[in-house]
Amino acid sequence: MNQQYPSVLLEKAVGEFAKLPGIGRKTAMRLVLHLLRQDTQSVEAFGNAMITLKHEVKYCRVCHNISDTDVCRICSDASRDTSVVCVVENIRDVMAVENTQQFRGLYHVLGGVISPMDGIGPSDLQIDSLVDRVRAGGVKEVILALSSTMEGDTTNFYIFRKLSGFDVKLTVIARGISIGDELEYTDEVTLGRSIVNRIAFTGTM
Amino acid sequence: MNQQYPSVLLEKAVGEFAKLPGIGRKTAMRLVLHLLRQDTQSVEAFGNAMITLKHEVKYCRVCHNISDTDVCRICSDASRDTSVVCVVENIRDVMAVENTQQFRGLYHVLGGVISPMDGIGPSDLQIDSLVDRVRAGGVKEVILALSSTMEGDTTNFYIFRKLSGFDVKLTVIARGISIGDELEYTDEVTLGRSIVNRIAFTGTM
Repeated sequence: MNQQYPSVLLEKAVGEFAKLPGIGRKTAMRLVLHLLRQDTQSVEAFGNAMITLKHEVKYCRVCHNISDTDVCRICSDASRDTSVVCVVENIRDVMAVENTQQFRGLYHVLGGVISPMDGIGPSDLQIDSLVDRVRAGGVKEVILALSSTMEGDTTNFYIFRKLSGFDVKLTVIARGISIGDELEYTDEVTLGRSIVNRIAFTGTM
Repeated sequence: MNQQYPSVLLEKAVGEFAKLPGIGRKTAMRLVLHLLRQDTQSVEAFGNAMITLKHEVKYCRVCHNISDTDVCRICSDASRDTSVVCVVENIRDVMAVENTQQFRGLYHVLGGVISPMDGIGPSDLQIDSLVDRVRAGGVKEVILALSSTMEGDTTNFYIFRKLSGFDVKLTVIARGISIGDELEYTDEVTLGRSIVNRIAFTGTM
Protein backbone atom coordinates (compact mmCIF):
# COMPACT_ATOMS: atom_id res chain seq x y z
CA MET A 1 0.00 0.00 0.00
CA ASN A 2 2.61 2.56 1.10
CA GLN A 3 4.47 2.47 -2.17
CA GLN A 4 1.45 3.98 -3.88
CA TYR A 5 1.90 7.21 -1.95
CA PRO A 6 3.96 9.73 -3.81
CA SER A 7 5.12 11.36 -0.56
CA VAL A 8 6.11 10.04 2.86
CA LEU A 9 4.81 13.22 4.50
CA LEU A 10 1.44 12.76 2.78
CA GLU A 11 1.34 9.11 3.82
CA LYS A 12 2.04 10.16 7.42
CA ALA A 13 -0.71 12.80 7.50
CA VAL A 14 -3.22 10.41 5.91
CA GLY A 15 -2.21 7.72 8.41
CA GLU A 16 -2.85 10.07 11.34
CA PHE A 17 -6.31 10.96 10.05
CA ALA A 18 -7.14 7.33 9.35
CA LYS A 19 -6.54 6.52 13.04
CA LEU A 20 -9.66 8.51 13.94
CA PRO A 21 -12.84 6.48 14.48
CA GLY A 22 -15.02 6.19 11.37
CA ILE A 23 -12.39 7.69 9.06
CA GLY A 24 -11.08 5.30 6.41
CA ARG A 25 -8.01 5.86 4.25
CA LYS A 26 -10.02 7.28 1.35
CA THR A 27 -11.76 9.85 3.53
CA ALA A 28 -8.45 10.61 5.26
CA MET A 29 -6.84 11.31 1.88
CA ARG A 30 -9.72 13.59 0.88
CA LEU A 31 -9.43 15.55 4.14
CA VAL A 32 -5.64 15.87 3.95
CA LEU A 33 -5.77 17.07 0.33
CA HIS A 34 -8.44 19.58 1.37
CA LEU A 35 -6.20 20.91 4.14
CA LEU A 36 -3.24 21.00 1.76
CA ARG A 37 -5.20 23.39 -0.45
CA GLN A 38 -5.72 25.82 2.46
CA ASP A 39 -3.12 28.47 3.33
CA THR A 40 -0.37 27.75 5.85
CA GLN A 41 -2.06 29.79 8.57
CA SER A 42 -5.27 27.74 8.38
CA VAL A 43 -3.39 24.44 8.53
CA GLU A 44 -1.41 25.68 11.55
CA ALA A 45 -4.65 26.79 13.22
CA PHE A 46 -6.10 23.33 12.63
CA GLY A 47 -3.10 21.40 13.94
CA ASN A 48 -2.46 23.69 16.89
CA ALA A 49 -6.11 23.82 18.02
CA MET A 50 -5.91 20.12 18.89
CA ILE A 51 -2.43 20.33 20.47
CA THR A 52 -3.38 23.38 22.55
CA LEU A 53 -6.61 21.74 23.69
CA LYS A 54 -4.73 18.63 24.80
CA HIS A 55 -2.06 20.67 26.64
CA GLU A 56 -4.29 23.19 28.34
CA VAL A 57 -7.55 21.35 28.92
CA LYS A 58 -8.77 21.34 32.51
CA TYR A 59 -11.50 19.40 34.21
CA CYS A 60 -13.80 21.06 36.73
CA ARG A 61 -12.72 19.95 40.22
CA VAL A 62 -16.37 19.80 41.33
CA CYS A 63 -18.21 18.01 38.49
CA HIS A 64 -15.25 16.82 36.31
CA ASN A 65 -16.75 18.40 33.21
CA ILE A 66 -14.27 19.81 30.69
CA SER A 67 -13.49 23.43 31.50
CA ASP A 68 -11.08 26.29 30.84
CA THR A 69 -11.11 27.22 34.51
CA ASP A 70 -10.66 25.41 37.82
CA VAL A 71 -14.40 25.32 38.43
CA CYS A 72 -16.56 25.10 35.29
CA ARG A 73 -19.12 27.67 34.09
CA ILE A 74 -22.07 25.53 35.17
CA CYS A 75 -20.79 24.87 38.70
CA SER A 76 -19.93 28.55 39.19
CA ASP A 77 -23.26 29.79 37.79
CA ALA A 78 -25.08 31.35 40.79
CA SER A 79 -28.47 31.07 39.07
CA ARG A 80 -28.41 27.26 39.03
CA ASP A 81 -30.00 24.94 41.57
CA THR A 82 -27.12 23.43 43.57
CA SER A 83 -29.40 20.98 45.36
CA VAL A 84 -29.90 18.75 42.29
CA VAL A 85 -27.02 16.81 40.73
CA CYS A 86 -27.43 14.98 37.42
CA VAL A 87 -24.97 12.07 37.04
CA VAL A 88 -23.85 11.48 33.43
CA GLU A 89 -21.29 9.34 31.69
CA ASN A 90 -19.29 11.94 29.76
CA ILE A 91 -19.10 15.56 28.71
CA ARG A 92 -21.14 14.94 25.57
CA ASP A 93 -24.02 13.89 27.80
CA VAL A 94 -23.70 17.16 29.72
CA MET A 95 -24.08 19.01 26.44
CA ALA A 96 -27.01 16.79 25.41
CA VAL A 97 -28.89 17.53 28.65
CA GLU A 98 -27.98 21.24 28.47
CA ASN A 99 -29.43 21.37 24.96
CA THR A 100 -32.82 20.27 26.26
CA GLN A 101 -32.91 23.44 28.41
CA GLN A 102 -34.99 21.41 30.87
CA PHE A 103 -32.41 21.16 33.63
CA ARG A 104 -31.12 23.96 35.85
CA GLY A 105 -29.19 21.89 38.40
CA LEU A 106 -25.54 20.80 38.42
CA TYR A 107 -23.80 17.79 36.86
CA HIS A 108 -21.42 15.05 37.88
CA VAL A 109 -19.40 13.47 35.06
CA LEU A 110 -18.42 9.89 35.91
CA GLY A 111 -16.03 9.45 32.99
CA GLY A 112 -17.69 6.21 31.90
CA VAL A 113 -19.73 3.35 33.32
CA ILE A 114 -18.74 0.20 35.17
CA SER A 115 -17.78 -2.33 32.51
CA PRO A 116 -15.83 -5.40 33.65
CA MET A 117 -15.48 -6.50 30.01
CA ASP A 118 -13.48 -3.34 29.26
CA GLY A 119 -11.65 -3.48 32.58
CA ILE A 120 -13.44 -0.42 33.95
CA GLY A 121 -14.23 -0.74 37.65
CA PRO A 122 -15.81 1.71 40.12
CA SER A 123 -12.38 3.07 41.11
CA ASP A 124 -11.77 4.21 37.51
CA LEU A 125 -14.82 6.45 37.69
CA GLN A 126 -15.63 9.60 39.66
CA ILE A 127 -17.97 7.77 42.03
CA ASP A 128 -16.08 8.47 45.28
CA SER A 129 -16.09 12.18 44.52
CA LEU A 130 -19.87 11.98 43.97
CA VAL A 131 -20.25 10.42 47.39
CA ASP A 132 -18.03 13.20 48.80
CA ARG A 133 -20.28 15.84 47.21
CA VAL A 134 -23.35 14.26 48.79
CA ARG A 135 -21.57 13.88 52.15
CA ALA A 136 -20.61 17.58 52.10
CA GLY A 137 -24.33 18.33 52.21
CA GLY A 138 -26.60 20.61 50.23
CA VAL A 139 -27.52 17.97 47.65
CA LYS A 140 -31.18 16.95 47.95
CA GLU A 141 -31.56 14.92 44.75
CA VAL A 142 -29.21 12.87 42.57
CA ILE A 143 -30.60 12.13 39.09
CA LEU A 144 -29.03 9.11 37.40
CA ALA A 145 -28.89 9.81 33.65
CA LEU A 146 -26.74 6.96 32.36
CA SER A 147 -27.19 4.91 29.21
CA SER A 148 -29.96 2.35 29.25
CA THR A 149 -27.52 -0.57 28.95
CA MET A 150 -26.45 -3.36 31.25
CA GLU A 151 -23.32 -1.35 32.16
CA GLY A 152 -25.42 1.74 32.84
CA ASP A 153 -27.82 -0.24 35.02
CA THR A 154 -24.91 -1.82 36.92
CA THR A 155 -23.45 1.61 37.57
CA ASN A 156 -26.85 2.93 38.67
CA PHE A 157 -27.12 0.10 41.17
CA TYR A 158 -23.56 0.60 42.44
CA ILE A 159 -24.23 4.33 43.04
CA PHE A 160 -27.58 3.44 44.66
CA ARG A 161 -25.78 1.27 47.21
CA LYS A 162 -23.02 3.83 47.81
CA LEU A 163 -25.56 6.59 48.52
CA SER A 164 -28.03 4.44 50.49
CA GLY A 165 -26.77 5.76 53.84
CA PHE A 166 -27.34 9.40 52.94
CA ASP A 167 -30.45 11.53 53.17
CA VAL A 168 -30.70 12.15 49.44
CA LYS A 169 -33.43 11.41 46.92
CA LEU A 170 -32.18 9.14 44.11
CA THR A 171 -34.04 9.29 40.78
CA VAL A 172 -33.45 7.85 37.33
CA ILE A 173 -34.47 9.48 34.04
CA ALA A 174 -37.64 8.08 32.45
CA ARG A 175 -37.30 5.33 29.88
CA GLY A 176 -40.05 4.79 27.38
CA ILE A 177 -40.89 5.15 23.75
CA SER A 178 -39.24 8.12 22.04
CA ILE A 179 -41.31 11.12 21.01
CA GLY A 180 -42.47 10.45 17.43
CA ASP A 181 -41.87 6.70 17.65
CA GLU A 182 -44.48 4.30 16.36
CA LEU A 183 -45.60 1.64 18.81
CA GLU A 184 -45.34 -1.29 16.42
CA TYR A 185 -41.64 -0.63 15.81
CA THR A 186 -40.71 -0.18 19.48
CA ASP A 187 -38.84 -3.10 21.02
CA GLU A 188 -40.84 -5.07 23.58
CA VAL A 189 -38.58 -4.32 26.56
CA THR A 190 -38.93 -0.57 26.08
CA LEU A 191 -42.66 -0.87 25.44
CA GLY A 192 -43.10 -3.11 28.47
CA ARG A 193 -41.26 -0.68 30.72
CA SER A 194 -43.20 2.27 29.39
CA ILE A 195 -46.44 0.51 30.35
CA VAL A 196 -45.21 -0.41 33.82
CA ASN A 197 -43.95 3.14 34.41
CA ARG A 198 -47.03 4.87 32.98
CA ILE A 199 -47.85 8.29 34.39
CA ALA A 200 -51.13 10.09 35.01
CA PHE A 201 -52.44 11.81 31.90
CA THR A 202 -53.13 15.48 32.60
CA GLY A 203 -54.39 16.53 29.23
CA THR A 204 -51.03 17.67 27.89
CA MET A 205 -47.98 15.66 26.91
CA MET B 1 -24.64 27.64 20.02
CA ASN B 2 -21.25 28.59 21.48
CA GLN B 3 -22.59 29.01 24.97
CA GLN B 4 -23.34 25.31 25.10
CA TYR B 5 -19.65 24.48 24.95
CA PRO B 6 -18.13 24.08 28.38
CA SER B 7 -14.68 25.11 27.08
CA VAL B 8 -13.48 27.72 24.60
CA LEU B 9 -10.53 25.49 23.66
CA LEU B 10 -12.89 22.59 22.96
CA GLU B 11 -15.14 24.86 20.92
CA LYS B 12 -12.11 25.99 18.91
CA ALA B 13 -10.88 22.45 18.17
CA VAL B 14 -14.40 21.32 17.20
CA GLY B 15 -14.75 24.38 14.99
CA GLU B 16 -11.52 23.56 13.16
CA PHE B 17 -12.64 19.99 12.51
CA ALA B 18 -16.08 21.12 11.39
CA LYS B 19 -14.45 23.23 8.65
CA LEU B 20 -13.40 20.02 6.88
CA PRO B 21 -15.65 18.88 4.03
CA GLY B 22 -18.27 16.34 5.07
CA ILE B 23 -17.60 16.78 8.81
CA GLY B 24 -20.50 18.25 10.77
CA ARG B 25 -20.32 19.62 14.31
CA LYS B 26 -21.48 16.33 15.87
CA THR B 27 -18.82 14.29 14.08
CA ALA B 28 -16.24 16.99 14.85
CA MET B 29 -17.09 16.73 18.55
CA ARG B 30 -16.79 12.93 18.44
CA LEU B 31 -13.37 13.14 16.76
CA VAL B 32 -12.06 15.82 19.14
CA LEU B 33 -13.19 13.88 22.20
CA HIS B 34 -11.53 10.79 20.76
CA LEU B 35 -8.25 12.68 20.34
CA LEU B 36 -8.60 14.12 23.82
CA ARG B 37 -8.61 10.58 25.21
CA GLN B 38 -5.29 9.80 23.48
CA ASP B 39 -1.95 10.61 25.13
CA THR B 40 -0.23 13.94 24.52
CA GLN B 41 2.32 12.41 22.18
CA SER B 42 -0.35 11.01 19.84
CA VAL B 43 -2.21 14.30 19.72
CA GLU B 44 1.04 16.14 18.92
CA ALA B 45 1.81 13.58 16.19
CA PHE B 46 -1.63 14.18 14.71
CA GLY B 47 -1.45 17.97 14.73
CA ASN B 48 2.16 18.18 13.60
CA ALA B 49 1.75 15.68 10.74
CA MET B 50 -0.53 18.15 8.97
CA ILE B 51 1.59 21.22 9.79
CA THR B 52 4.80 19.49 8.66
CA LEU B 53 3.16 18.30 5.45
CA LYS B 54 1.97 21.82 4.66
CA HIS B 55 5.40 23.34 5.41
CA GLU B 56 7.57 20.79 3.67
CA VAL B 57 5.45 19.51 0.81
CA LYS B 58 7.06 19.79 -2.61
CA TYR B 59 5.64 19.35 -6.06
CA CYS B 60 7.63 17.54 -8.74
CA ARG B 61 9.01 20.15 -11.13
CA VAL B 62 8.40 17.83 -14.09
CA CYS B 63 4.90 16.44 -13.55
CA HIS B 64 3.67 18.61 -10.60
CA ASN B 65 2.71 15.54 -8.59
CA ILE B 66 3.14 15.81 -4.82
CA SER B 67 6.65 14.71 -3.83
CA ASP B 68 9.24 14.75 -1.05
CA THR B 69 11.99 15.49 -3.56
CA ASP B 70 12.56 17.94 -6.38
CA VAL B 71 11.67 15.34 -8.99
CA CYS B 72 9.11 12.74 -7.92
CA ARG B 73 9.61 8.98 -7.62
CA ILE B 74 7.69 8.25 -10.79
CA CYS B 75 9.53 10.80 -12.96
CA SER B 76 12.91 9.61 -11.67
CA ASP B 77 12.08 5.90 -12.10
CA ALA B 78 14.40 4.70 -14.89
CA SER B 79 12.20 1.66 -15.62
CA ARG B 80 9.25 3.78 -16.77
CA ASP B 81 8.37 4.70 -20.33
CA THR B 82 9.19 8.41 -20.70
CA SER B 83 7.59 8.62 -24.16
CA VAL B 84 4.02 8.38 -22.83
CA VAL B 85 2.52 11.11 -20.62
CA CYS B 86 -0.85 10.67 -18.94
CA VAL B 87 -2.58 13.99 -18.18
CA VAL B 88 -4.69 13.95 -15.01
CA GLU B 89 -6.56 16.48 -12.92
CA ASN B 90 -5.00 15.95 -9.48
CA ILE B 91 -2.72 13.75 -7.40
CA ARG B 92 -5.57 11.49 -6.37
CA ASP B 93 -6.02 10.60 -10.03
CA VAL B 94 -2.32 9.70 -10.26
CA MET B 95 -2.83 7.29 -7.38
CA ALA B 96 -6.01 5.92 -8.99
CA VAL B 97 -4.22 5.17 -12.28
CA GLU B 98 -1.17 3.79 -10.43
CA ASN B 99 -3.46 1.42 -8.53
CA THR B 100 -4.60 -0.14 -11.82
CA GLN B 101 -0.98 -1.21 -12.48
CA GLN B 102 -1.81 -0.86 -16.19
CA PHE B 103 0.31 2.20 -16.91
CA ARG B 104 4.10 2.42 -16.95
CA GLY B 105 4.51 5.89 -18.46
CA LEU B 106 4.76 9.28 -16.76
CA TYR B 107 2.11 11.72 -15.55
CA HIS B 108 1.27 15.37 -15.85
CA VAL B 109 -0.90 16.83 -13.08
CA LEU B 110 -2.91 19.83 -14.30
CA GLY B 111 -4.14 20.89 -10.88
CA GLY B 112 -7.76 21.02 -12.03
CA VAL B 113 -9.81 21.50 -15.19
CA ILE B 114 -10.94 24.62 -17.04
CA SER B 115 -14.08 25.82 -15.30
CA PRO B 116 -15.23 29.38 -16.03
CA MET B 117 -17.98 29.00 -13.43
CA ASP B 118 -15.33 28.55 -10.72
CA GLY B 119 -13.05 31.16 -12.27
CA ILE B 120 -10.45 28.58 -13.34
CA GLY B 121 -8.90 29.40 -16.68
CA PRO B 122 -6.11 27.69 -18.65
CA SER B 123 -3.48 29.91 -17.02
CA ASP B 124 -4.40 28.55 -13.57
CA LEU B 125 -3.50 25.04 -14.72
CA GLN B 126 -0.20 23.39 -15.65
CA ILE B 127 -1.02 23.42 -19.37
CA ASP B 128 1.89 25.58 -20.54
CA SER B 129 4.36 23.30 -18.79
CA LEU B 130 2.73 20.32 -20.58
CA VAL B 131 3.32 22.06 -23.91
CA ASP B 132 6.92 22.72 -22.81
CA ARG B 133 7.40 19.03 -22.03
CA VAL B 134 6.11 18.07 -25.47
CA ARG B 135 8.20 20.81 -27.14
CA ALA B 136 11.34 19.51 -25.37
CA GLY B 137 10.89 16.28 -27.33
CA GLY B 138 10.86 12.61 -26.39
CA VAL B 139 7.10 12.46 -25.77
CA LYS B 140 5.35 10.31 -28.39
CA GLU B 141 1.90 10.04 -26.85
CA VAL B 142 -0.19 12.21 -24.53
CA ILE B 143 -3.11 10.38 -22.91
CA LEU B 144 -5.92 12.64 -21.70
CA ALA B 145 -7.41 11.07 -18.57
CA LEU B 146 -9.68 13.84 -17.27
CA SER B 147 -13.15 13.53 -15.81
CA SER B 148 -15.95 12.82 -18.25
CA THR B 149 -17.64 16.17 -17.53
CA MET B 150 -18.19 19.31 -19.58
CA GLU B 151 -15.20 20.91 -17.85
CA GLY B 152 -13.05 17.85 -18.56
CA ASP B 153 -14.11 17.85 -22.21
CA THR B 154 -13.40 21.59 -22.52
CA THR B 155 -9.92 21.06 -21.07
CA ASN B 156 -9.33 18.10 -23.41
CA PHE B 157 -10.22 20.30 -26.38
CA TYR B 158 -8.03 23.18 -25.16
CA ILE B 159 -5.03 20.85 -24.81
CA PHE B 160 -5.83 19.31 -28.21
CA ARG B 161 -5.56 22.77 -29.83
CA LYS B 162 -2.40 23.68 -27.89
CA LEU B 163 -0.65 20.47 -28.98
CA SER B 164 -1.98 20.43 -32.56
CA GLY B 165 1.28 21.82 -33.97
CA PHE B 166 3.45 19.08 -32.45
CA ASP B 167 4.30 15.61 -33.71
CA VAL B 168 2.62 13.83 -30.80
CA LYS B 169 -0.19 11.28 -30.69
CA LEU B 170 -3.11 12.51 -28.57
CA THR B 171 -5.41 9.88 -27.06
CA VAL B 172 -8.26 9.90 -24.58
CA ILE B 173 -9.13 7.13 -22.12
CA ALA B 174 -12.04 4.91 -23.18
CA ARG B 175 -15.50 5.76 -21.93
CA GLY B 176 -18.11 3.04 -21.79
CA ILE B 177 -20.10 0.94 -19.39
CA SER B 178 -18.27 -0.01 -16.22
CA ILE B 179 -17.11 -3.58 -15.66
CA GLY B 180 -19.92 -5.34 -13.81
CA ASP B 181 -22.55 -2.80 -14.86
CA GLU B 182 -25.88 -3.96 -16.16
CA LEU B 183 -26.93 -2.53 -19.51
CA GLU B 184 -30.45 -1.58 -18.48
CA TYR B 185 -29.20 0.65 -15.69
CA THR B 186 -26.54 2.43 -17.78
CA ASP B 187 -27.42 5.99 -18.81
CA GLU B 188 -28.12 6.41 -22.52
CA VAL B 189 -25.22 8.79 -23.24
CA THR B 190 -22.67 6.33 -21.87
CA LEU B 191 -24.36 3.40 -23.61
CA GLY B 192 -24.54 5.33 -26.89
CA ARG B 193 -20.87 6.24 -26.74
CA SER B 194 -19.88 2.68 -25.90
CA ILE B 195 -21.69 1.46 -29.03
CA VAL B 196 -20.11 4.14 -31.24
CA ASN B 197 -16.65 3.39 -29.82
CA ARG B 198 -17.01 -0.42 -29.96
CA ILE B 199 -13.78 -2.38 -30.39
CA ALA B 200 -13.01 -5.64 -32.19
CA PHE B 201 -13.81 -8.68 -30.03
CA THR B 202 -10.76 -10.91 -29.78
CA GLY B 203 -12.17 -13.69 -27.62
CA THR B 204 -11.02 -12.15 -24.31
CA MET B 205 -12.22 -9.06 -22.46
